[in-house]
Formats: sequence, structure tokens, C-alpha cells
Amino acid sequence: MNGDKIKSVAIIGGTHGNELTGVRLVEHYQSHPTEVKRSSFSTQLILANPMAIQKGTRYVEKDLNRCFASASLNQANPNILEVCRAQEINQILGPKGSANCCDFIVDIHNSTACMGFSLIISRLDPMLTSLCASLWRKEPQLFKLYLMPESSGDAPYLPTISKRDLCLEIGDQAHGTVRADFYIRAKQCIAEILDFTEKWNTNRLTTPQELEVPLYQQWKNIDYPRRPDGSPAAMIAPNLQFKDYQPLHYGEPLFIDYSGNTTLWEGQTVYPVFINEHAYYEKSIAMSLTHQIKKTITTYDI
Amino acid sequence: MNGDKIKSVAIIGGTHGNELTGVRLVEHYQSHPTEVKRSSFSTQLILANPMAIQKGTRYVEKDLNRCFASASLNQANPNILEVCRAQEINQILGPKGSANCCDFIVDIHNSTACMGFSLIISRLDPMLTSLCASLWRKEPQLFKLYLMPESSGDAPYLPTISKRDLCLEIGDQAHGTVRADFYIRAKQCIAEILDFTEKWNTNRLTTPQELEVPLYQQWKNIDYPRRPDGSPAAMIAPNLQFKDYQPLHYGEPLFIDYSGNTTLWEGQTVYPVFINEHAYYEKSIAMSLTHQIKKTITTYDI
Repeated sequence: MNGDKIKSVAIIGGTHGNELTGVRLVEHYQSHPTEVKRSSFSTQLILANPMAIQKGTRYVEKDLNRCFASASLNQANPNILEVCRAQEINQILGPKGSANCCDFIVDIHNSTACMGFSLIISRLDPMLTSLCASLWRKEPQLFKLYLMPESSGDAPYLPTISKRDLCLEIGDQAHGTVRADFYIRAKQCIAEILDFTEKWNTNRLTTPQELEVPLYQQWKNIDYPRRPDGSPAAMIAPNLQFKDYQPLHYGEPLFIDYSGNTTLWEGQTVYPVFINEHAYYEKSIAMSLTHQIKKTITTYDI
Repeated sequence: MNGDKIKSVAIIGGTHGNELTGVRLVEHYQSHPTEVKRSSFSTQLILANPMAIQKGTRYVEKDLNRCFASASLNQANPNILEVCRAQEINQILGPKGSANCCDFIVDIHNSTACMGFSLIISRLDPMLTSLCASLWRKEPQLFKLYLMPESSGDAPYLPTISKRDLCLEIGDQAHGTVRADFYIRAKQCIAEILDFTEKWNTNRLTTPQELEVPLYQQWKNIDYPRRPDGSPAAMIAPNLQFKDYQPLHYGEPLFIDYSGNTTLWEGQTVYPVFINEHAYYEKSIAMSLTHQIKKTITTYDI
């Protein structure tokens, strides 16, 4: 078995205050800590943006999940609430890039796009890819492996302050609401992740199998056509809505404007994700385009 | 044929600034006014809460769609943005309760609940019930007739300042997003409503049929169990999520808490709607309970 032992795990909810699966889960674990306790590692629980959670908004002054690039973490005397909070979290779970940082962070998010249970990672760490591929092996319709390669220092995402970063992106769920089916499955998923980590540490993983696993690798984001006031001049074409991770071929509809005129996709086959994500309207992102690659990964029983 | 002729119609979008089907439709009609022009009546287009639309929020200071009760409309020197705006709109389309008020207002809303195309009315006006039942006759899976009886003076909803009030409630759609399929069908629906009104005025409605139509009559709202801080202590039970307008029987699950404990419904059969509506978390409403009644209504071809 490859890789070092995992000595510290952190489970994060509320990095975005209106993404409630993680908020409710972490609150639950805080009052039921034995559910996330395992013998071979410590588990920390953090509600990342309590002020945004209280207000029921994604963030207060700045998207917290864009505040963890090294430059922002090292900024002197920050006066933006989320930059301050990111530096606090970096003190607790980092410092980013140091030998002392947390071994493994799981950050729980929601999307209004049909992301299922997306496992977003920035690095092909052996333990992390094995974990994700093993979840996929158990339930291939639910789990998707989404690779966002980015150099750790530049990556602005919270879990990148740890040695192994996993963003669990669950959808579709309207922000500010909770779907019980997702909550229940997410709780089971966290247990599966912790149990896998425990078995990884203690060499008790069973039935290894080399599997060719579909991996969706971030290519680029594309924006809506925009009107002069910045509002979208068109909508996601109906054939794409809720069709995340499905192939989009040359010549298929991409957008439709309010009069019914269609814009076609004129590139090679891609796999769009985060389709019609609410929070990305302000980020000039209508969807993210990925390429599907196949990678052989050692999987185990979950 | 019963009822007076309709001389004035108003189509409203953006009463809630983050419910975008109506916002995008009214914007579209403003630049394509012939699409809503008919010979026998005038059509006005209004974006009800422009400041909230700009901010991408439901409202700025107060829910505009709770500012149209007579007492609020007659309040002297209001200093709340939405109360002022309601009084302005009442000057344009009202005054509420007067002989001069608009004959027919269609107010377009969205919900995160699976409301389909709900036709919400406060009064059993002959033209309005015929219109709604005729839409239902054409597409019974899509359209639902939802009766919220309330004395007009007390009702706080925008369209109640007119002689005939119709709220078109479309969902599920995450607030702040647009689903193209809903937008396209809503545009068709507005054309159907205008064409029906034109035929009503000119006695050209065809193939009358007396039909027994299911009508969902508001009974009461119920709230989530709450924690001391006001946040919901439980979630909508998974069997209810997205099951608006379906019967809830005695003994079936209503809520589930974060540990998995279920609260059962212990009343007579009801038909819940607005299940898990995001905007109602702050209004202490987990869902609205309705009774299904049957009413014989004269329907026509749409």
C-alpha cells in the first residue's frame, strides 16, 4: 500500500453559508462526536463561515472559498471578513504547504446543478484517488471523480491547505434548503470516507481491484452571452439542464435566448458540469467544461 | 357567457427579485410588445421590484408581496422601500377595491418546490375559473388550481389590487436561476391566457365542456420543528420532497431529524404544497396544507 498514514482529518461545512448539507451535518457531528471518531486519526469539525451561515448567504464580503491562495493567506492586516476567517482556519488546519498541516480535509458543498456526489480533487494522491475510485466502484451512478489540477499555492480553495483535499459537491439542491435524501446519503458517505481512512491506516482494506475509472478533468469555464447591464442574454439550452457529466457533441444546443434562438456548441465533445449553478452567475460561469479521461486506479471494498 | 369584458390586463414579473422566469419574460415583452398586444384590451407590463431584481434578492427591506393589504396601501408616509413601491403600483394598477382598478393581473412567481404551473387565485370569478380550468383541461399534469380564499382588503398579495387576481407559481426552480424549459412553457402560457381573454371578450371561445376539476384549497401552513436559535430541527421527509399536490395520509412521514428520527402526519388526508420552499424558511412555513375539492367548471378549448 502506498502513502503515509493519515493522522488528522477535518470535516468542513458552511464554507458557503447557504449550502446546508454540510452545515447540518457538521452541527450534527458536533453534538454526536463519536460518529466521526476513529482510532487511528483525529477528526476536527469546523463550520467555516459562521457569519454567512447565520445570514443564510453564500458569503458576507467575499467568497471564502476563494481566500486560500498563499498570497491571500499571507496578506498582512486583512480587513475583509472572509480573508480574516481564512487566515484563522489556516492557523487551525494549516499552515498551507507546511509539514504540520492537516493530512486530509473533506469540505462539503452543494450546487443547484445536478452534480450528484462529485468528488473534486486537485491532486492524484494515491490514498485520495483510491478512496474516490472505491466510492465510485460502489455506486457509479452517484459518484463522479472531478479533477481540478492546480498548483497548491495558487489554488484558492479551503481544502488545499491540507495534504489531501477533497471537496464533496452535492446537487442539485436549491441553496438555503436541505434535501433529506442528500443529507442521509452524505452522512453515509462521510462514514464511508472515515472507515476507508481507518482501514488505509491499519492495512485492512479488502478485495483490491485495478479498475479503469472515468475522471472528469477541468478544461475551462464558459460564460453566458451577456447584455450591457451584465445580466445573461440567454439561458442554458433545455437539453443541457440537469445533464451534468453527459457528453456535449459538436452542433448540439448550448444556449437559447429569450426569443428562442439557439447557440450551438462548435467544439469537440466535452462533458459540462456545474450547469446553471446559481452562485456562478456572478462569476461569469454558465458551466465548466471537462474532458473525460480514463485512469486505472486501485480500488477496494467500501 | 358570464362576467364583464376584460378591458385591462397587467403582466407582472419580479415581485420577488430572484424569481427570474417572470423577470426575463417581462423584460422580453418590453422589447417585443406586440407579443402581448390584443385588440380587445390593453396590456401593461411591470417589473415590480427593480431594486431587488438588481440585487438578485427576493426583496430589499420587506417582502413586496406582503405589502398590498389595504392598511399597508393606505399607510401615510411609509419609509420602507417595498411599502412605497406597493403604493406606487397601486396608483398604476389600482386603487385596490375601486371601480377603476385593473381588470386582470397575472403575477409570475417561482418556487423551489415542485409546484408545476400552479394557478393561484383568491376568488371564484367565472372568467378566471374558466380560464384556469381550461388550461388544466389542456394539460392536467402541468397545471394545478390552487384556491387561497381571503377577503380582498386583507389579502397582502400584489394581484389582489385588481378585479381578477392570478398568481402563476412555477417550480421547481432554484431562486436566482432560469430553467429554459419553464421559461418557454411560461411564454406559451401567457399567450394562452391572453388569447383566452381575447376570445372571452369577443364571444369566440369554443367547445364548452362542464368538467369536474380538482381544486386545491388552502387550509393551513405548518412549520418545521425549530431549534432554540430558530433554525429547523428537522428536514422534510424524503417521501414528501418534490411531491407537491400528492396526498399525505395519516401515519406517513412528515419530517425527519438529523439523527434519522421521523415525525408522522397524524391528521386526515391532506395535499401539501410549497414543500421545502426556500423563501418560506424565514416565514415559519415548511409546507402549506390544502384540501382537494372538486368543482364543476365550464371549460373551453385553449
